[in-house]
Amino acid sequence: MIEIDAPRGFRFAGMASGIKKAGKPDLALIVSDGPATCAGVYTKNKVVAAPLRITRENLAAGKCQAILVNSGNANACTGAAGMQAARETLGLVAGELGLAPELIAISSTGVIGQQLRLEPFKVGIPQLAATLSATAAAAVAEAIRTTDAFAKVASAEEFGEPGYKVLGLAKGAGMIHPNMATMLSFVLTDADVEAELLDAALRRAVAKSFNSITVDGDTSTNDMVLVLANGHSGATIAAGTAEAEAFCCHLDRVLLDLAKMIVRDGEGASKLVQIKVVGAADADSARVAARSVATSSLVKTAFFGEDANWGRIIAAVGYSGIEVDQDRIDISFDSVPVTVNGLSTGAEREAEATEVLKRDEFIVTINLNQGEAEADYYTSDLGYEYVRINADYRT
Amino acid sequence: MIEIDAPRGFRFAGMASGIKKAGKPDLALIVSDGPATCAGVYTKNKVVAAPLRITRENLAAGKCQAILVNSGNANACTGAAGMQAARETLGLVAGELGLAPELIAISSTGVIGQQLRLEPFKVGIPQLAATLSATAAAAVAEAIRTTDAFAKVASAEEFGEPGYKVLGLAKGAGMIHPNMATMLSFVLTDADVEAELLDAALRRAVAKSFNSITVDGDTSTNDMVLVLANGHSGATIAAGTAEAEAFCCHLDRVLLDLAKMIVRDGEGASKLVQIKVVGAADADSARVAARSVATSSLVKTAFFGEDANWGRIIAAVGYSGIEVDQDRIDISFDSVPVTVNGLSTGAEREAEATEVLKRDEFIVTINLNQGEAEADYYTSDLGYEYVRINADYRT
Repeated sequence: MIEIDAPRGFRFAGMASGIKKAGKPDLALIVSDGPATCAGVYTKNKVVAAPLRITRENLAAGKCQAILVNSGNANACTGAAGMQAARETLGLVAGELGLAPELIAISSTGVIGQQLRLEPFKVGIPQLAATLSATAAAAVAEAIRTTDAFAKVASAEEFGEPGYKVLGLAKGAGMIHPNMATMLSFVLTDADVEAELLDAALRRAVAKSFNSITVDGDTSTNDMVLVLANGHSGATIAAGTAEAEAFCCHLDRVLLDLAKMIVRDGEGASKLVQIKVVGAADADSARVAARSVATSSLVKTAFFGEDANWGRIIAAVGYSGIEVDQDRIDISFDSVPVTVNGLSTGAEREAEATEVLKRDEFIVTINLNQGEAEADYYTSDLGYEYVRINADYRT
Repeated sequence: MIEIDAPRGFRFAGMASGIKKAGKPDLALIVSDGPATCAGVYTKNKVVAAPLRITRENLAAGKCQAILVNSGNANACTGAAGMQAARETLGLVAGELGLAPELIAISSTGVIGQQLRLEPFKVGIPQLAATLSATAAAAVAEAIRTTDAFAKVASAEEFGEPGYKVLGLAKGAGMIHPNMATMLSFVLTDADVEAELLDAALRRAVAKSFNSITVDGDTSTNDMVLVLANGHSGATIAAGTAEAEAFCCHLDRVLLDLAKMIVRDGEGASKLVQIKVVGAADADSARVAARSVATSSLVKTAFFGEDANWGRIIAAVGYSGIEVDQDRIDISFDSVPVTVNGLSTGAEREAEATEVLKRDEFIVTINLNQGEAEADYYTSDLGYEYVRINADYRT
């Protein structure tokens, strides 16, 4: 396991506790040396998992000192028994670490509708507590994987005296309807950030990252993004300062990096495609159009087939619901224009565009030529692997 | 080619004109002996194909005598040249049949963004006119196929004196985002139906059929459903009568049969699944919930994997946007309850449900236990064939 140079005052542990049948890592703990200021963004799904209900309540006061996460079982749709099981896992952590339960976040991801077995937690939590290490963040990233092809870690650093770090861990694999991917992310910084600023910065960063790969409000039963700021670096960030701007940029970058990794992972995806709508009448229209293209299965299968099928793209803009003038739409793949004023630029350009589609990563720019507003969405191609992974997930 | 016993006073022809490279049937003509009363439902996409613009205008007066359809080229996103080409095809039919252009519908389906070559039409239309036959409706159904695995024909008959027939032809293969499937349907009856009644009956039938597989308002650039009533049977249908009710039932049945065929075709689909939401607070909520489940790629891949993954179903209800109480939701696969009050009914029931999923056709019933409203959506599974067909479509 690689060692990660984490923000000061955080310790990590991950293990295979037996929740997953295959003996893969499935349980992890993050602990701050002292209570951290905390902000969270949670799923908007009306069906909500037990651990998320508890965590949302616990962290409402804006303080958090430990996060317990398991993969392999979502503890969602498990009723009163599931709530009871979640509370017991919380109690185990509180007892082991000697912390008030209100300072602890719990989080689960995996199959919906199966009761959580407590045995792995009873055995695992003391082991995790005993092996906490400042350099073991990668073990947490490993243990929270479900269908993820790789562990997701991103970081940023503010140099200077005192400087600070921002470390992000995430799990999630972008899907056709990305809203359905359980997405968990835990972001840690050793800066001391004002609570209100932390909350605002997180919401801004999530809008430009995770919510530009997942459809707003359309999230799984378990999604959550938490950020903890424990102040151990000595750096203090107050709202309205240049330092606050810098902190927001670091947070933006870490979350966007993680979001792109989730798209790139994409449950069988082989390409990372940025859908850039420009020249829209307003920001909402830009976003709606970009999302419509980014979530179109026909567009995504064309990416997989490396087919510069701009007809599917323009059709997805057309049914997005925004007002468009089809005769003014321009579309490019990276720097190759395939559509100008709603018309094909010809076979030669399309052949060039086909070369762009062979790349692992490219940008589709759609200019509506209506105004100045822009929006970006990140999507993946849709190939055979998506079907294989999702058809076989539980078996 | 099988002979179809069509409504009286309609003649049909289909051929391979060379629009498709592979020499497959791609051009068809339907002609009524005398002008028929006509109603149409068209795409709500903001990007609209040239032939659809012309047809919508031509048929606004409610009369139609001939329909020209081609597959292989959608004549969409083709600008002024595409409009000109569409008008020329219209002129060719008008000249050949000696009809006013306003009595002619033209319709195209296939690749978007390529200019229409007129040569196949110049050669083909006289040949079609020369071979029109009352028993050749199947040739039309063949010629309008694109990715369709089979031609789609459905019919109903009102017995009695005078009786009448309703014949429906359609093309379209249901997709993940069914809104993107170009869907064409032409329905013919030899009853004499009042224009307003015909229009109302068509809208009602479309809502319960094609719009319960495709998302309202989210349609392709070329979608249209036309119904022609030429009165050649001698049966007259006036609004507000028992005969009108019977006619509506026949039309409903023909359109629902065609819609189910489109789902069953489903671009690589192997299963036809009815998503039945019951016990909803109101009809809109029922519809929104059913659509959310029916369009979930995760639900559809689980169907392909024959996995009774009700967790994905309940999550899709949860993110649909309607208010739900997760602790009151019941879910069954055919007659097997897998979820009661939001909880699993256990491994034995789930094993039984897995047997249901092996069927070609089954019903997922979701009871929200909130009220009396219901809605049905029809969907397919999502498997490897979907990817293969859609990734390779243009190549």
